[in-house]
Amino acid sequence: MDIRSLSSSHHHSQSERYIHKVGVPPKQNLFKEFRETLKETFFADDPLRPFKDRSRSQKFILGIQTIFPIFEWGRKYNLKKLRGDLIAGLTIASLCIPQANSSFVPPLIYAFMGSSRDIAIGPVAVVSLLLGTMLQNELDPINEKAQYQRLAFTATFFAGITQVTLGFFRLGFLIDFLSHAAIVGFMGGAAVTIALQQLKGFLGIKKFTKKSDIISVMHSVVASWNWQTIAIGASFLSFLLFAKFIKNKKFFWVPAIAPLISVILSTFFVYITRADKQGVQIVKNIKKGINPSSVNEIYFSGDYLLKGFRIGVVAGMIGLTEAIAIGRTFAAMKDYQLDGNKEMVALGAMNVVGSMTSCYVATGSFSRSAVNFMAGCETAVSNIIMSCVVFLTLEFITPLFKYTPNAILASIIINAVIGLIDIGAATLLWKIDKFDFVACMGAFFGVVFSSVEIGLLIAVSISFAKILLQVTRPRTAILGKVPRTTVYRNIQQYPEATKVPGVLIVRVDSAIYFSNSNYVKERILRWLEDEEEEVKAATYQPRIQFLIVEMSPVTDIDTSGIHALEGLHRSLEKREVQLILANPGPVVMDKLHASSFTSLIGEDNIFLTVADAVSSCAPKLVEEQP
Amino acid sequence: MDIRSLSSSHHHSQSERYIHKVGVPPKQNLFKEFRETLKETFFADDPLRPFKDRSRSQKFILGIQTIFPIFEWGRKYNLKKLRGDLIAGLTIASLCIPQANSSFVPPLIYAFMGSSRDIAIGPVAVVSLLLGTMLQNELDPINEKAQYQRLAFTATFFAGITQVTLGFFRLGFLIDFLSHAAIVGFMGGAAVTIALQQLKGFLGIKKFTKKSDIISVMHSVVASWNWQTIAIGASFLSFLLFAKFIKNKKFFWVPAIAPLISVILSTFFVYITRADKQGVQIVKNIKKGINPSSVNEIYFSGDYLLKGFRIGVVAGMIGLTEAIAIGRTFAAMKDYQLDGNKEMVALGAMNVVGSMTSCYVATGSFSRSAVNFMAGCETAVSNIIMSCVVFLTLEFITPLFKYTPNAILASIIINAVIGLIDIGAATLLWKIDKFDFVACMGAFFGVVFSSVEIGLLIAVSISFAKILLQVTRPRTAILGKVPRTTVYRNIQQYPEATKVPGVLIVRVDSAIYFSNSNYVKERILRWLEDEEEEVKAATYQPRIQFLIVEMSPVTDIDTSGIHALEGLHRSLEKREVQLILANPGPVVMDKLHASSFTSLIGEDNIFLTVADAVSSCAPKLVEEQP
Repeated sequence: MDIRSLSSSHHHSQSERYIHKVGVPPKQNLFKEFRETLKETFFADDPLRPFKDRSRSQKFILGIQTIFPIFEWGRKYNLKKLRGDLIAGLTIASLCIPQANSSFVPPLIYAFMGSSRDIAIGPVAVVSLLLGTMLQNELDPINEKAQYQRLAFTATFFAGITQVTLGFFRLGFLIDFLSHAAIVGFMGGAAVTIALQQLKGFLGIKKFTKKSDIISVMHSVVASWNWQTIAIGASFLSFLLFAKFIKNKKFFWVPAIAPLISVILSTFFVYITRADKQGVQIVKNIKKGINPSSVNEIYFSGDYLLKGFRIGVVAGMIGLTEAIAIGRTFAAMKDYQLDGNKEMVALGAMNVVGSMTSCYVATGSFSRSAVNFMAGCETAVSNIIMSCVVFLTLEFITPLFKYTPNAILASIIINAVIGLIDIGAATLLWKIDKFDFVACMGAFFGVVFSSVEIGLLIAVSISFAKILLQVTRPRTAILGKVPRTTVYRNIQQYPEATKVPGVLIVRVDSAIYFSNSNYVKERILRWLEDEEEEVKAATYQPRIQFLIVEMSPVTDIDTSGIHALEGLHRSLEKREVQLILANPGPVVMDKLHASSFTSLIGEDNIFLTVADAVSSCAPKLVEEQP
Repeated sequence: MDIRSLSSSHHHSQSERYIHKVGVPPKQNLFKEFRETLKETFFADDPLRPFKDRSRSQKFILGIQTIFPIFEWGRKYNLKKLRGDLIAGLTIASLCIPQANSSFVPPLIYAFMGSSRDIAIGPVAVVSLLLGTMLQNELDPINEKAQYQRLAFTATFFAGITQVTLGFFRLGFLIDFLSHAAIVGFMGGAAVTIALQQLKGFLGIKKFTKKSDIISVMHSVVASWNWQTIAIGASFLSFLLFAKFIKNKKFFWVPAIAPLISVILSTFFVYITRADKQGVQIVKNIKKGINPSSVNEIYFSGDYLLKGFRIGVVAGMIGLTEAIAIGRTFAAMKDYQLDGNKEMVALGAMNVVGSMTSCYVATGSFSRSAVNFMAGCETAVSNIIMSCVVFLTLEFITPLFKYTPNAILASIIINAVIGLIDIGAATLLWKIDKFDFVACMGAFFGVVFSSVEIGLLIAVSISFAKILLQVTRPRTAILGKVPRTTVYRNIQQYPEATKVPGVLIVRVDSAIYFSNSNYVKERILRWLEDEEEEVKAATYQPRIQFLIVEMSPVTDIDTSGIHALEGLHRSLEKREVQLILANPGPVVMDKLHASSFTSLIGEDNIFLTVADAVSSCAPKLVEEQP
């Protein structure tokens, strides 16, 4: 290497800047490399870090605390915190009484296993109603009530299993594949579907389609309505919507408890007017007492097993995305780290247990978590309190809700899901990234016109198509010298940057892989041709003698890529143009060496920076001038 | 912007270097952007360039010349070129007489439409024998000869259609998705499969499996052999293998015509000894005369249509990859550009016509093209000459080959395919890129143990998995200042590079997308934590106050990515660490503006280079020192 550095520094005798040679990273053995990749892929968050150099007993305790974080923060728990949690717990409890059933067991489990301090666990509009829509494609909730419930529990069970599995096998990163854009579109679509489903209760229609797509729903909406139902529903819906507009910080709880209020009011109203006699449908038979066991109601055989599994996987994934997203948000606000994979295990375990105590899929609810957070919760204890309150409700108060009109629940749900149609986010997507917007719309229309699964599928595939496109047709840029600096930048971005006569500087903006290697090669050659034409046109311009490829963004290269570079080198030789590489990264440098490409173009044609490369060309250029 | 540059330049009062502000590329309208992307994706090679500002008649002539390049180079054709082509033509003709049937029509067509000057067209070991293997999975070539042939023509037809379609719709880049690694493995696998198939003829076995996977073949190999057959086959195979080893440039044609020699010799030998009486199988009924029309033999209905289609697509793709690869290689040697898509149309048309004149899939043969090239061919005329010679052969000489023993054809084929097992290339793959090697092996074993399609599928999916992994878990690096320069590089690659006290410089080596945004965020925070621990351990070290993210390799960002950056910014604020961006590219800068992230972290916290960023931190740091 000594000779090499000499020879190169010799080139720039007149440029007094010291030319530093490009480093080749220390060769590490295969196994180590492999382990590194594995670690970064599955254990990016290095979960075993705290276990390092501890005694066995400590390790055991740590292990327990990792599975049940409550034993960790529980020891630091105090009255002050309890106060916060109590208020928060009561507040969120008031919100979930209408859908109480699934708000008793899951929060308890989560409180012990979960690591987020702010999530409020319970059935969530999107997930549980999504679940409903998918179930109704299989069974009729009225006539086939029994199987319907059993299928629901089965789905919940598998949702839990999915979550635990994902978490346990460190596949947490899979949910990152649901891009923000996809989620926005998906939520919107789900909201519309769900709202439409609720028209049944809202308009007091007797027989309603089981399908979830907009067409068939619209068909069944054109049916005999019940005006009393509509009157009640409409009035309370408007009340709820009005409550939403109270942006006052002091009254943040108004929209929060509005649902409860309207339930109580409407129930009372129906009770005294006996409106149910006028065909206003009411909840009627409501299960009293806490959740009975439902272990042996889960389908472990038959084709409902499969259906339940399919539905469960989807519901589980969606549940996860929401919970993790919420967890991350609040963790960022209070600045504590959240282990996604651990969260998943907790959520999964909670749903598995839930499915055995007749609960539907539960997850972190954004609205309630927000309330929980603003009510000043400190730890997951608020969840425990909530579940206790719910328990008492189930025991003693629930029967009173017998007279609650379905229209109210419908309007509560509609009111809840309307908030999910986030037009602001969509427009922002359009402004920032057209491709994201397309993915978003794909998800939206997929869900609205076809089904949840299709919507997700569309969104995900569009998102991936984008990545692949970017890797197949990477951007390339001509660089120029930014005046009064030694940096070379894209002349499109910096119009003031000036080209170096006789030298063409190209930057490739992607790893060079089989999918783009040929394109990159031919694109560079095309740049060269264009440049040569320009030069011909201009007078007193030396012909292009050096092609500098800025490799900084080239994060990786594979054999096809190297072959492409070799091809490039060959055709450049034909045109008497010298190929020069600037700042190849460690991985690339490593592979260029392994394939002995470095010796092909000459060690001293690889430079640390474009500036070095240029200053090495300059003298040679001069000689060749006429 | 003026204020911004002022304020920033003020920061570096003591560093006299002029701080250049990061450029925002001129906003271009949506349609233009869209058109650009489309062009780069499908018309990267700008095929209409020559048509610019020409008269209509000129355009017409150009159009003809584009479809039939022969009218372009034909006009410059001369005797000198003819001499080269004549010799080359005769040479390659001698090679393909054993498999003459498909070497008559296709070369003619190609000569008119193709744009490569060196490719020698004809049936190729891999493709045609691959075709055979796939056909034999459907039909028995002996007992169901008629359907077998019809299916073969059908496959050929659809192979042609596939190629034309790909070319016409500018989908040429799709074949780039077959990575070099995949092809190496695939070829090797195909070679093994094909060689095994030939054992039938080579060992003179009567009944043989129709399956192509190694297990079932091995079963049928354990059968009654015919020693005379083996004797003949073995002797000539060894002759062929020996001929291979003549590396002498002067005798390059020896291995080339060895097949022909052995055919003639063996035929003569069998004719005089009447070895066929001793159960040495011979070709027997050979079609005399030129190819009859086979238009109405192609299946355009029934389930053979589908099978033919499936086989055709695969064979067509493989044919393309080989032809294009060869074309590119020789084009690079003689330094002329090759339009992949145009090539495809030519190859496709040639196969469509071929399928109607009882030819099997033909494509560019590497071995023969090499001979063609070394025999000094000038243009595609050598193909015309070859096809004429073949024509004469078919007319008059073929009948003599009635006595050619199958064993010879088998050994010729075996000899041909053995060359395809490129262990050197495989080892190189291992040396350069482990992942490529895995893809290669996947293809190889997929083909050997299961089927061609499976092999391809495995290879392609591994290759893509690699890309996705790279995009899901991008590399990140800590940068340090390279001594005696103002450049900051990966401290792993440049151990001499030194960190800047109080400043952490991280480089993200990939576009930031939904699939990696969370990982990138958390990874950076982990770098920070590690660094802070180090600082705590060390004495007289200022705490980390600035986090500089080097964005050069970040070629693109989507909304999820921007959200991640916002999240990063928030949690850094909590730790009182200032987030600074260095050298974001045009696209990224554009989106950061659109999402007003720039104003969130402050315009003057975005710098052109890491050096600028550091020099802006330095003074602030000093103030905060105790």
